Amino acid sequence: MRVGFVQFAPEIGRLRRNLERAEALAPRADLLVLPELCASGYNFSSRAEAEGLSEPAEGPTLAACRRIASKTGAAVCAGFAEKSGNAIYNSALLADAKGLVGVYRKTHLFENEMDFFTPGDTGFRVWDCAGAKIGLMICFDWFFPEAARTLALRGAEILAHPSNLVLPWCPDSMPVRSLENAVFAITCNRWGDERGLNFIGRSQVTAPDGRILVRAPEDADAADTVEIDPARARRKTIATRNDRFGDRRPDFYAR
Amino acid sequence: MRVGFVQFAPEIGRLRRNLERAEALAPRADLLVLPELCASGYNFSSRAEAEGLSEPAEGPTLAACRRIASKTGAAVCAGFAEKSGNAIYNSALLADAKGLVGVYRKTHLFENEMDFFTPGDTGFRVWDCAGAKIGLMICFDWFFPEAARTLALRGAEILAHPSNLVLPWCPDSMPVRSLENAVFAITCNRWGDERGLNFIGRSQVTAPDGRILVRAPEDADAADTVEIDPARARRKTIATRNDRFGDRRPDFYAR
Repeated sequence: MRVGFVQFAPEIGRLRRNLERAEALAPRADLLVLPELCASGYNFSSRAEAEGLSEPAEGPTLAACRRIASKTGAAVCAGFAEKSGNAIYNSALLADAKGLVGVYRKTHLFENEMDFFTPGDTGFRVWDCAGAKIGLMICFDWFFPEAARTLALRGAEILAHPSNLVLPWCPDSMPVRSLENAVFAITCNRWGDERGLNFIGRSQVTAPDGRILVRAPEDADAADTVEIDPARARRKTIATRNDRFGDRRPDFYAR
Repeated sequence: MRVGFVQFAPEIGRLRRNLERAEALAPRADLLVLPELCASGYNFSSRAEAEGLSEPAEGPTLAACRRIASKTGAAVCAGFAEKSGNAIYNSALLADAKGLVGVYRKTHLFENEMDFFTPGDTGFRVWDCAGAKIGLMICFDWFFPEAARTLALRGAEILAHPSNLVLPWCPDSMPVRSLENAVFAITCNRWGDERGLNFIGRSQVTAPDGRILVRAPEDADAADTVEIDPARARRKTIATRNDRFGDRRPDFYAR
């Protein structure tokens, strides 16, 4: 199974341009991840601006993902500003050529996102898609070990992780998320500057043994893929007699 | 507050020699961590051997820790094989010059430890000692994010982490444990070979911002300390508006 990311630099407010850019870059694969808020851009100046750039789950981002799926053969995960009733969520969708597979709404909002978005109400979800079990989390969710853990306990073999990272720690921490849960993770970050924020690029795929299989540069478009075997994520063994899940002792863990 | 570790290479079965070695190496400090099973050695050939090298909590390891405390001014955390009734636990004690402060029994046993030890029944505990809140975990507990998380949620500012590491991942992963919880962590590992096992040294102190403040070599005695401010571990903020604990959403986390 070939998985990867489409790292680029969305321009705020230019939905059509951004989606066309992602389409143009997307390589052949079985699963591709695009950045968080990849059509709208990130650093809104007001809730009104965010609302004007939001869309329903079955909107232009889904349409672009279906076109990418048709062109590349891949299931596609992409972040978008989701309009639902009066709320806007920082969401990610998973789609294939046939249509929408599922939507995840970001659980842990970061900084000024709190001014624009409603905290996610979906919880962490896993779908059977493209021959693997795919769990979604978005950007800052990585900081909370419970996010990746919950997806892994629910059977995720691959974490699809659309991001707009500005803090420095995620790329060197995701190997630990992959290692502690024995899952693959595809972090797709954007790069570039937007209204005073700098995004750090370095999209990557990490493996159950903690290795970084491929990493993008910090300041350039980069669409890259790597071959993985998702079945590897079903083996939770450590050394000979230990098991990441079987050895857990939840009665001793604080909530 | 000055904290550190006493990395050395215990010899299996030579309790007095090993404790004297720790005493000889211990530097002045406020808190010192010694390795897991630092008096008995690690790689027992039978349960009978483990039992013969086990001791009550108020035994020779405690006596040595009190001597180290008197000599250096430090509270001391040390791993020992704890005999309690018919059970043996892979335990760590925390002591100062006045005596025993507390005992933690390892929750997640690694590999052949399962043949010798009873899984710990204390859970993750935190004590006020040496001017800070100190939480104990042992070696392989690090692999489970719930261990450090539980200690931090219970108020630990410093994780005292006696270890006998053979797998490669802990030293480069503990920065993530410190970062995600905003705690200091003192991992004291042993080094050397013992009956076919090689221990990887690289004892270290990590900080709430994910930095490694000091790290020992992989194959030598090393007693090192560093100045820290445990109050730093009481600030759980990330960037400006986020908080490692305040932002948690346990209703969405799987147990």
